Amino acid sequence: MDLQEMFDPEGVAVVGASKTEGKVGNAIVRSLERRFQGSIYPVNPKYESIEGHRAYESVSDIDENVDLAIIGVPAEIVPEVVKNCGEGGVKNIIIVSAGFREAGRVDLEEDIKRYVDEFDLNVIGPNCLGIFNSKNGLDTIFNPPDRQSRPPEGSIAFLSQSGAFGAALLDWFSEIDIGISKFVSYGNRVDIDEGDLLRHFNDDTDTDILLFYIEGLKDGRDFVSAAYESNKPILAFKSGKTEKGSSAATSHTGSLAGKDKVYEAAFKQSVILRASSVREMISAAKAISMQPFGEEKGVGIVTNGGGAGITLIDAIVEKGLEGADFSKRTNQRFREKISEGSIPQDVSFQNPVDILGDASSERYHTCMELVLEDKNVGGLIVVLLFQSPSLEDDIIDRLRELQGYKKPIVCMAPGSDLTEPIRKKIEDIGIPVYETPEEAAQGMKALMYFG
Amino acid sequence: MDLQEMFDPEGVAVVGASKTEGKVGNAIVRSLERRFQGSIYPVNPKYESIEGHRAYESVSDIDENVDLAIIGVPAEIVPEVVKNCGEGGVKNIIIVSAGFREAGRVDLEEDIKRYVDEFDLNVIGPNCLGIFNSKNGLDTIFNPPDRQSRPPEGSIAFLSQSGAFGAALLDWFSEIDIGISKFVSYGNRVDIDEGDLLRHFNDDTDTDILLFYIEGLKDGRDFVSAAYESNKPILAFKSGKTEKGSSAATSHTGSLAGKDKVYEAAFKQSVILRASSVREMISAAKAISMQPFGEEKGVGIVTNGGGAGITLIDAIVEKGLEGADFSKRTNQRFREKISEGSIPQDVSFQNPVDILGDASSERYHTCMELVLEDKNVGGLIVVLLFQSPSLEDDIIDRLRELQGYKKPIVCMAPGSDLTEPIRKKIEDIGIPVYETPEEAAQGMKALMYFG
Repeated sequence: MDLQEMFDPEGVAVVGASKTEGKVGNAIVRSLERRFQGSIYPVNPKYESIEGHRAYESVSDIDENVDLAIIGVPAEIVPEVVKNCGEGGVKNIIIVSAGFREAGRVDLEEDIKRYVDEFDLNVIGPNCLGIFNSKNGLDTIFNPPDRQSRPPEGSIAFLSQSGAFGAALLDWFSEIDIGISKFVSYGNRVDIDEGDLLRHFNDDTDTDILLFYIEGLKDGRDFVSAAYESNKPILAFKSGKTEKGSSAATSHTGSLAGKDKVYEAAFKQSVILRASSVREMISAAKAISMQPFGEEKGVGIVTNGGGAGITLIDAIVEKGLEGADFSKRTNQRFREKISEGSIPQDVSFQNPVDILGDASSERYHTCMELVLEDKNVGGLIVVLLFQSPSLEDDIIDRLRELQGYKKPIVCMAPGSDLTEPIRKKIEDIGIPVYETPEEAAQGMKALMYFG
Repeated sequence: MDLQEMFDPEGVAVVGASKTEGKVGNAIVRSLERRFQGSIYPVNPKYESIEGHRAYESVSDIDENVDLAIIGVPAEIVPEVVKNCGEGGVKNIIIVSAGFREAGRVDLEEDIKRYVDEFDLNVIGPNCLGIFNSKNGLDTIFNPPDRQSRPPEGSIAFLSQSGAFGAALLDWFSEIDIGISKFVSYGNRVDIDEGDLLRHFNDDTDTDILLFYIEGLKDGRDFVSAAYESNKPILAFKSGKTEKGSSAATSHTGSLAGKDKVYEAAFKQSVILRASSVREMISAAKAISMQPFGEEKGVGIVTNGGGAGITLIDAIVEKGLEGADFSKRTNQRFREKISEGSIPQDVSFQNPVDILGDASSERYHTCMELVLEDKNVGGLIVVLLFQSPSLEDDIIDRLRELQGYKKPIVCMAPGSDLTEPIRKKIEDIGIPVYETPEEAAQGMKALMYFG
């Protein structure tokens, strides 16, 4: 299965294109127009032109090269359009229309499948949003940009069974600057499923990391084998975990969510990191989109608040990581710094290193370096309680200097709008900042898991 | 133990007050000055006046009525100042200075305790931030307001062993508009401990809910018995859960964090809702500060995205709640609405009610009412994916109309800055909005737990 042209087509037909603002068939044309440089061919027998493009009666009437057709007509007539695409030589199809398996119309999906086989087609959907390719601007999402932002270019492929929820997460990614290579909302998977996508993105040079939102796998065995052969980190969130959730999944996209334990085992076997909540997924995605991976060794903590350090140690242990035990040499170096007077007597240099509420950037710097240089330390979490007046924003320069250590670093800095600008600046230098201890720990977990 | 004057003093002495901006002894005077209407008496033999107030050589030199002394002098001389307060008839004391048990100086705490007994004093601290009373503006927190906001008036008493982390959370509360009655950072608890605070706030008419951040209880048995007798809901987050976390707690405020299982059992016995993460604590606090409590019955869900509904059902079950099974009557009413044509055929009216991506406020309204009127439904979670262009902000009026049902309602609306203004408006009418399914479920859990 070659999906190259699906994601990078020269010509795109939009079947069911519309002149009416607010209609799906109009919104898709507009989404494409924003950045996509290829040709756009609206298909609708009612019109001569749509959004400045000549409109066609059917796909087979288009003389130019069409690599991809996006279908947004009522479910009932979709199979006929698919057949028409096949006859016209269009190999790649995205069906955004709903009203299939999830509405009891398995028969329509069976019809589509027949044409897929007959004409050797690649089909995404139905009941989905399709594709957003951050690089070439191919964008079949019908949510307008004033409702749903598109994330910046990045290295994560985000593959979501759910359309609406996937779009909401995409919107969230934009806000917190998680860059993506491609987004695929694949819905009912009449043809292309998770395993196919996994194999495709394993070869995609723009993608370094795969992020799945799954309700239930179509072919679990195939997915696990594709994941096992993959050489890219995979992060997955699976819903339908509980019995009630699973039965809701069945009525949503007709997925059999299956027993959660089976998934748990399969994910473990194929070295997939499973996020157990949406917040965990977001926290992990943020870390891996910004920081280098690191060896799974002890985590060092430097904090200007004792309480935050304790909560963080708890969170680290609960994620299956360990707080680092510093080497004798590091303890000795801390003692030297104290006797030199460069850090105060009361600094507690057992991990977490509590550098006290009046810590300046200078004191952070000294202690962060000592921790990062310890051979038992695999990564560093820095707690920054900016509520303390002693901590100025020159901490950003100090953090930047640490990147040479090539060990993963994440920060935790809870608080209000007052500290938000500093948080943003820290993220601008590539260090993720979290609001809670548990989320910072999850970020570090992802970096060490994939390391 | 009568702490009335501690929280509502007429005259306040600040021992160790300073003229130098940035110093703790200066910041406390400024914090008091912002809103507190009582008299402020700086104490420092070096100055004649501080921030426009006459300065005194010692507490006993003040002729006026002093109900509270805030002590910020070096640890070494704190016992002497406490003695001086006792001799001068000052009954209530907050010691913000650090350098006691947590720095190996248990002896200094022993000295203070002797004076507490001798003069029958009430002492908060040492190693703490003290008190913020949102009603009268009594504010002993030395973090300046451009670094740490103070939350609005509300009904939650937030009692935190940790100072710095407590302050960071207070700052966060301000941002998301969680109102508080009082904040107490109580540090090393040489005298006043969790049980004392619990009893005090049980009688405090400004407080409806108690929120504890605990590292380790000083007197677990007393706390449990006070909690058991309390008639107010108590929400607690306890750190030092893991072995490493527990040993870090010991070096922080000299707390013996103790075995976590013992706490778990004690919390259960005294009907305390335990938050297992900071995010859970925040999510619960937000819900209980805004919504009425409700009976622990099934939760109904109305969503414009199937995937979000599934994830939410999972989250509800994982929090120990149940998705509601709608009554026959409700199912019948849904069928009627469909045959009338007021909601579309494809709406799935098993819980979660998936009202589809093109749902308008009108469709939400119809379905939310049907769910809330069901006798099996104890509360409603509304998923609002504003990324869909069909959902306009008149949903706010529709949500407002539901408040007459007297059942708890929370919303979930993930996304970016684009939807932030609508989220704020929904919270302005008293309905909390969460970014993730798990957090919405936690909000509902708190409302039903205390119901």
